[in-house]
Amino acid sequence: MRAVTVREFGGPEVLQISELPDPTPAPGEVLLQVAATAVNKGDTHQRAGNYPPPPGITDVMGLECSGTVIALGADVTRWRVGDEVCALVAGGGYADRAVVPAGQVMPIPAGVDLISAAALPEAAATVWSNVFIEAAFQPGETILIHGGAGGIGSFAISLAAARGHRVLATAGSPDKVAECVNLGADVGINYRDEDFLGVVKEATKGRGVDVILDNMGASYLDRNVKSLATGGRLAIVGMQGGTRGELNIGRLLVKRARVIATSLRPRPIAEKGAICAQLVDEVWPLFASGAITPVIDCVMPLSDVARAHERLEASSHTGKIVLTP
Amino acid sequence: MRAVTVREFGGPEVLQISELPDPTPAPGEVLLQVAATAVNKGDTHQRAGNYPPPPGITDVMGLECSGTVIALGADVTRWRVGDEVCALVAGGGYADRAVVPAGQVMPIPAGVDLISAAALPEAAATVWSNVFIEAAFQPGETILIHGGAGGIGSFAISLAAARGHRVLATAGSPDKVAECVNLGADVGINYRDEDFLGVVKEATKGRGVDVILDNMGASYLDRNVKSLATGGRLAIVGMQGGTRGELNIGRLLVKRARVIATSLRPRPIAEKGAICAQLVDEVWPLFASGAITPVIDCVMPLSDVARAHERLEASSHTGKIVLTP
Repeated sequence: MRAVTVREFGGPEVLQISELPDPTPAPGEVLLQVAATAVNKGDTHQRAGNYPPPPGITDVMGLECSGTVIALGADVTRWRVGDEVCALVAGGGYADRAVVPAGQVMPIPAGVDLISAAALPEAAATVWSNVFIEAAFQPGETILIHGGAGGIGSFAISLAAARGHRVLATAGSPDKVAECVNLGADVGINYRDEDFLGVVKEATKGRGVDVILDNMGASYLDRNVKSLATGGRLAIVGMQGGTRGELNIGRLLVKRARVIATSLRPRPIAEKGAICAQLVDEVWPLFASGAITPVIDCVMPLSDVARAHERLEASSHTGKIVLTP
Repeated sequence: MRAVTVREFGGPEVLQISELPDPTPAPGEVLLQVAATAVNKGDTHQRAGNYPPPPGITDVMGLECSGTVIALGADVTRWRVGDEVCALVAGGGYADRAVVPAGQVMPIPAGVDLISAAALPEAAATVWSNVFIEAAFQPGETILIHGGAGGIGSFAISLAAARGHRVLATAGSPDKVAECVNLGADVGINYRDEDFLGVVKEATKGRGVDVILDNMGASYLDRNVKSLATGGRLAIVGMQGGTRGELNIGRLLVKRARVIATSLRPRPIAEKGAICAQLVDEVWPLFASGAITPVIDCVMPLSDVARAHERLEASSHTGKIVLTP
């Protein structure tokens, strides 16, 4: 099969399409004929050598895919050959075929096509596990979503808005801010023109937000803590602004607030399976009802993978970049 | 009535016994004839001008007390005049009489005398709310308790050990370390002689601890994060080592860990009442069974309040310093 690997760590030019043996599903796994995969920030870090696959995971790139079940490992009873599905994978999505633990395989949501479904698992699992599980986002609460035009951010806006929450979102251009509002943000903030802290304070009458979904890390840490309401939770899922920042513990303590940082990929298979099960129960019905739709930036052939990475790293995209083998 | 206030912000010498009118219980409050109160770090910060009472709260010192119900405000049905109780108060414990919201009044645990019970509410509520509620400490998990010989720390060791957890604790002298072990710590660490991080790594075979109860804040932040296991929670309740510290977000993210900081005093009455109700259900029976006992450093007359503050600030104590009006 064809699969994307890296020649050596570096820029998008190191991505190459290799001919590799088909993977074989181990017990508890299924083999998918991949219809589409999607690009994540983590892929670019892996390509650059900063985000190695967990032990035992293929070095073929790709954290999610959609496709058709073509073989079952031992002990898999919940899927059948021919099922059209999407899946969260720890690696191997950028390929003609991929193996996945059965618990990380999900049905295609009603109303979503097979190709677009490739763009859902990573963003949905990241947003659900961080915002709704770890940060325990409650009905009536308000959220600030950084990187609102990105793959994670755009999904987070859609989902939070569809569930009736007040949403504030940041993005880096007027067009992207408009897209955030279009997706359901009540307040869009162009972080190049405005200090998000000031906008948050004004929009919440000084109260602050209950939850922040953050992809910046260090550079936003202090202003994020300042933006939290009493009892607020800062969930950090990315560190585009650095990995070490000064934490004002006194402010955190006065607010009875918390800082949470998680990463999906290294989690045990059982935890990922539990998250995927909740997605199917809690999130997939919102696609069926039309309350949310996949946010797709563009669909490219897998052979254009280098161009896809360039587009992601230039932050030229809004929503997910999908690749088809 | 006699009550302790401060002449001006400063050292223990500013504490004075004043003659004040008796407080009157508002609707939902009870009036207690105070049998004893106890000294907390927060009291010393209040005395120094760094921890003002929340809005609407008396500036009489004291965050906890025990005594006898002598009058009921309107709408109080759960207590009767003559009941012997202990209570968590937002201020006013250092006095002959104190008013308390009825939900923050608790029975004296079976097996505990009225005087010693004054030393329980603040430590028990702090430990329970932080370790068991906020940090969601689970059966089978391991905890590191800093300041293990102090009022909060000694209670935390007793409670965690009585509930079957593995406990590591730090303290600042061989005697205090011995007392930590005596209270139930499996591993006692003299932080003056040993780096607690190294001991934690060795004692947990490199895994780290699931929960840390920390009273140091900034100076321990980095080593605390390093000491956490995957999925670990750092609960900060004091900042004796400073309020601003560098947070390694990358390490937190890899561990899927969280930093929690809370303070009990400014919480809404309903939240404090919920915490007190859990104490009565979950913790008080452990006194009745003898699994835990109050850790009392000494009992002094209220007129010795300045000496009591000196003793606390010199860290000469092990357990709680109790004052009797």
